[in-house]
Amino acid sequence: LTGATEKIKIKGTKSISIKEIAQICGVSTATVSRVLNDNGRFSNETKNKVLQTVEKLGYKTNNIAKSLRTKKTRSIGIIVPDITNEYFANIILAIQNFFFPQGYSVLVYNTNEDQGKEDLYLKDLEAKCVDGLIYFFCMEDRGQIDAIRKKIPVVFVDRNPNRKGAVVVESDNYTGGFLATEELIKSGCRNIVILRHILTNSTIVGRYKGYRDALNKYGIPFNPDLVLDMYVNANASKEAICRLIECGIAFDGVFACTDWLAVGALMALRKHNIKVPQQVKVVGFDNVSISEYSSPSITTINQDKTRLGEIAAQLLLDMIDGNSIDEKNIILPVELIKRETT
Amino acid sequence: LTGATEKIKIKGTKSISIKEIAQICGVSTATVSRVLNDNGRFSNETKNKVLQTVEKLGYKTNNIAKSLRTKKTRSIGIIVPDITNEYFANIILAIQNFFFPQGYSVLVYNTNEDQGKEDLYLKDLEAKCVDGLIYFFCMEDRGQIDAIRKKIPVVFVDRNPNRKGAVVVESDNYTGGFLATEELIKSGCRNIVILRHILTNSTIVGRYKGYRDALNKYGIPFNPDLVLDMYVNANASKEAICRLIECGIAFDGVFACTDWLAVGALMALRKHNIKVPQQVKVVGFDNVSISEYSSPSITTINQDKTRLGEIAAQLLLDMIDGNSIDEKNIILPVELIKRETT
Repeated sequence: LTGATEKIKIKGTKSISIKEIAQICGVSTATVSRVLNDNGRFSNETKNKVLQTVEKLGYKTNNIAKSLRTKKTRSIGIIVPDITNEYFANIILAIQNFFFPQGYSVLVYNTNEDQGKEDLYLKDLEAKCVDGLIYFFCMEDRGQIDAIRKKIPVVFVDRNPNRKGAVVVESDNYTGGFLATEELIKSGCRNIVILRHILTNSTIVGRYKGYRDALNKYGIPFNPDLVLDMYVNANASKEAICRLIECGIAFDGVFACTDWLAVGALMALRKHNIKVPQQVKVVGFDNVSISEYSSPSITTINQDKTRLGEIAAQLLLDMIDGNSIDEKNIILPVELIKRETT
Repeated sequence: LTGATEKIKIKGTKSISIKEIAQICGVSTATVSRVLNDNGRFSNETKNKVLQTVEKLGYKTNNIAKSLRTKKTRSIGIIVPDITNEYFANIILAIQNFFFPQGYSVLVYNTNEDQGKEDLYLKDLEAKCVDGLIYFFCMEDRGQIDAIRKKIPVVFVDRNPNRKGAVVVESDNYTGGFLATEELIKSGCRNIVILRHILTNSTIVGRYKGYRDALNKYGIPFNPDLVLDMYVNANASKEAICRLIECGIAFDGVFACTDWLAVGALMALRKHNIKVPQQVKVVGFDNVSISEYSSPSITTINQDKTRLGEIAAQLLLDMIDGNSIDEKNIILPVELIKRETT
């Protein structure tokens, strides 16, 4: 064991070159050889460094070699729009809690609703050889969505790509939109604003359809001036509601398609000294902490975030294990949580 | 190419056995051989299935084999107490945004401040062969913290383990605690409650020391009855403040060591019809959205979450690349954000 091209074997798997160890430790190949042959003339520090490096590389090598044998990396990817949004974070947490005891770790990719990023992430997930993907897509290109499904098991959560054979777990957004609007109507509202995400995905389409059908059922004419589209943040909805007030467009109810949009609406109403719920009533969607702890607390539609994550995780594990999936489109029930804004 | 033990080579790397492909596709080894030799007698469906499997396995094999050659998985781990807390989520986001363009993906592990979980995660990170770790520890066992540092590059964020040579990025918690308390004193408070996390880590120690020193500086006697320890959630602090009121212990200011604890304090004060800021003033810590959007909005200490994440990520990349680290303990400045509760 003296030449730089020689290799050593550890724990019966892949070999590591003396040269590699020397490079990492910043010593000569001769020194590495002396340590490995226990042939004097090196400090204790050098000895420890070399032996630790050998152990470390051996361990890593063994584990990667195992992945190569099993063709499994025991990791899954999650592509998600915004981990700083508690709604998504709760689902990710449920997925991680499900998968960790199964021996899987979770790679998290945040798109910020940027299709360019999402495209790069899909490529990276392939390169990282994940065993499966849980996918909150923003991608409008259904071709790319189909392409990734051919390569790895994919479960779609929250947003439905409406593709044949796709495995999807989503909330009953239609009923949520209906219940939210009905709650406003039953509280006496007749001019109901809807605050929507500007990106049209299945969640928004469903909630909007529920809104329209509730208006219809109660014989309230639809007014397109009351449909406001924006990016999902409180400031955007605050500005939108302020503009509506300043333009003198009358309204007595607001259905916000997320709780954070509802928070912005409350700020705008407060700014204009409009009393909630006396003058204007507000309903949100998601049931994240802000809806419970804001003042007034916000009536909202609860989505079962933990179950969304758990069911998606179970379905993905079944797909990874090659089990058959009986029901490919799981729709979870939602419920109205009545608080102080209605 | 007819026997089950034969192997095929793809893209010049590792070979895959015919048997393996047959098993995955659920066909006989003879069928796989016929497809690969384009030797008739198989359906188009079978052909596509076999070829796709070969391509998929080949790709995965290639990439894992590359990891084996380079001894790098191009992934890093993050161990974090609570991804549903926007403070942590913002730091994770900054880390992911930094690492992705460098070709690294991010494995996220959520401890919920559970040392047992954290211990399992450390083992899993080793098994997954991550190239480095960003570590918000809850572990009290410094031996385990030292052990992981010997195995992989580690950067500690938010919480300082106070270990020789450890690379740490943290906010100036002492100054934060001092500024928060000083703001309350300068607004006229003399009996100032501090709401602390029950787990004693460097962030709490620093903020508490700042609180004590500010009281000292302004000649205000310390009252141990006003130090309340709890788990970090709004309901816990609401209950703690309600108990204080019901016990008739007088106070005119609250320094909450997180914004969510401040939210709970506001709820308790509202419940008892105590006016904020007229009768009791409140300061939070972190500057997460809830502090800006609650009503009244909460005066708080800003932590630069994006910079905490970016600097930690840069330091970890330097360590992975074998660059020397000049400054091992980075302390980022904090600032008081004045809002409606003081």
